[in-house]
Amino acid sequence: MESSDTSGRLAIIAGHGFLPLYVAEAARERGENPYIIVLKNEGNRDFSQFDHSFVGVGDALLIQSIIKKHGIARVVLSGGVHHRPEVSEIRPTFGALLRLPGILRTLISGGDDAVLRMVISLFESMGCKVYGVHQIAPNLLAEVGAINGSPLTEYDRRDIRVAAHAAKILGELDVGQGAICVGGRVVALEGVEGTDAMLMRVAELRAAGRISQRKKGVLVKLCKPQQDLRADLPTIGPATMRGAAAAGLAGIAVEAGRALVVEREECIAITQQEGLFLYGLDLAAKNMGLE
Amino acid sequence: MESSDTSGRLAIIAGHGFLPLYVAEAARERGENPYIIVLKNEGNRDFSQFDHSFVGVGDALLIQSIIKKHGIARVVLSGGVHHRPEVSEIRPTFGALLRLPGILRTLISGGDDAVLRMVISLFESMGCKVYGVHQIAPNLLAEVGAINGSPLTEYDRRDIRVAAHAAKILGELDVGQGAICVGGRVVALEGVEGTDAMLMRVAELRAAGRISQRKKGVLVKLCKPQQDLRADLPTIGPATMRGAAAAGLAGIAVEAGRALVVEREECIAITQQEGLFLYGLDLAAKNMGLE
Repeated sequence: MESSDTSGRLAIIAGHGFLPLYVAEAARERGENPYIIVLKNEGNRDFSQFDHSFVGVGDALLIQSIIKKHGIARVVLSGGVHHRPEVSEIRPTFGALLRLPGILRTLISGGDDAVLRMVISLFESMGCKVYGVHQIAPNLLAEVGAINGSPLTEYDRRDIRVAAHAAKILGELDVGQGAICVGGRVVALEGVEGTDAMLMRVAELRAAGRISQRKKGVLVKLCKPQQDLRADLPTIGPATMRGAAAAGLAGIAVEAGRALVVEREECIAITQQEGLFLYGLDLAAKNMGLE
Repeated sequence: MESSDTSGRLAIIAGHGFLPLYVAEAARERGENPYIIVLKNEGNRDFSQFDHSFVGVGDALLIQSIIKKHGIARVVLSGGVHHRPEVSEIRPTFGALLRLPGILRTLISGGDDAVLRMVISLFESMGCKVYGVHQIAPNLLAEVGAINGSPLTEYDRRDIRVAAHAAKILGELDVGQGAICVGGRVVALEGVEGTDAMLMRVAELRAAGRISQRKKGVLVKLCKPQQDLRADLPTIGPATMRGAAAAGLAGIAVEAGRALVVEREECIAITQQEGLFLYGLDLAAKNMGLE
């Protein structure tokens, strides 16, 4: 963690969801004065408590001028990016122009992972150091074991193993991070729709009798194996917990140290109301550290 | 193909969708008098033109008595089975009783494939020979190459390769048969929801701008590698074609000889109206036989 290096102003590139706001608050608590670069059509929270401006996803030219104007030297990416920029929206910097064919190819046909790696290298080419959310707000990281204290059943452990195997392969394909296993059987894999939509699908399939009412099941979200930890760590929050409850699941497992739990107190309150578990896996340990 | 063996009456086990009706008609055209065993809550077509009765999915006892009463010696499974029987609905035969713990385990936590293999072995234990739809109605099988004559673009070939790779891995996990690739990127993998629901999801993601409007993409459906060909071959029909058009895809590819195209004339008419391709892949050939 290079969190001790605080030379130059910190910018938070804010995509979709609550995460950028948590990161901004965590940075402020550490004595930083973060500048929020809110991505148009993506960033959808209220950043009025912070210095901020709105920028099109493909507008590298404007991003570069903000970086210069505000003396930004460190950048953290946070939140989802749902819409890829259309070619007409891209305003490249001079440096990026030289690499434009490769950039366009990545934007059009690369997996999320390839796009994020490219975005990181663009910021680096502007002289910024790119950090991961886990370096700015390490308290958000999931830890090993039962995060809410609930014990796992034998069925939960089996479902976690099966879903984790599927999620690992899904990540290798650079398709998504999440897999849901019910009664030992993978019933849903996450694509472009995202985790919340996948959970809603499982809730509907359950209501329609397409998934047994008698078996609970689990959601496992894992980092893609080739993923740069500075981008798009799997994130669990209250919406995920409520979605898992609506889908009739027993709980959620993520990889300890490589996944974020935001609004932890509310997450834990929901696990208690709904009887869910929330578990951090140690993928390097025997049996993933499952107790 | 053992279609020349016509000793004993043919029974068609009819699940969800149009397929059982096509198989019944194909059998009648060959001079058979098929008996339709319609699965309750699954078979949803009008079988009044054929001798038939309704049977609960788990009611092996009733199925055995029908087989004896009507002199049935050959069985073909066709159509989807969406609902797994609850334990309370299972009325096993004496022979099945001995194997009940294994049967229950398979029903509860086996993939579709494991369940179908079990059903086949149950029919065999009742003295029936189990055939595949491709043996009773070989004219439904997809052939190699452009089924509707449309040529593929370079982008189509790339998307087919990527989706086929994902579909193959999905099959190895015994999760589903279909994958959708848009602009070189896998955007959806089929789980319990089935192909039509997955296509609808892609149409919605497209409308919401989460998938580029500029790239078309393809659906590839493949047999699971470990799959018994006598059960649940990937099937394409007019609903699939219309779903692909609504999702903005360029076309559909299946494995030649291991996928069914039902209502072929209407499918081809839709491909022409919508500008879609329909292609049969030769997985054993170099580059899958893509021209």
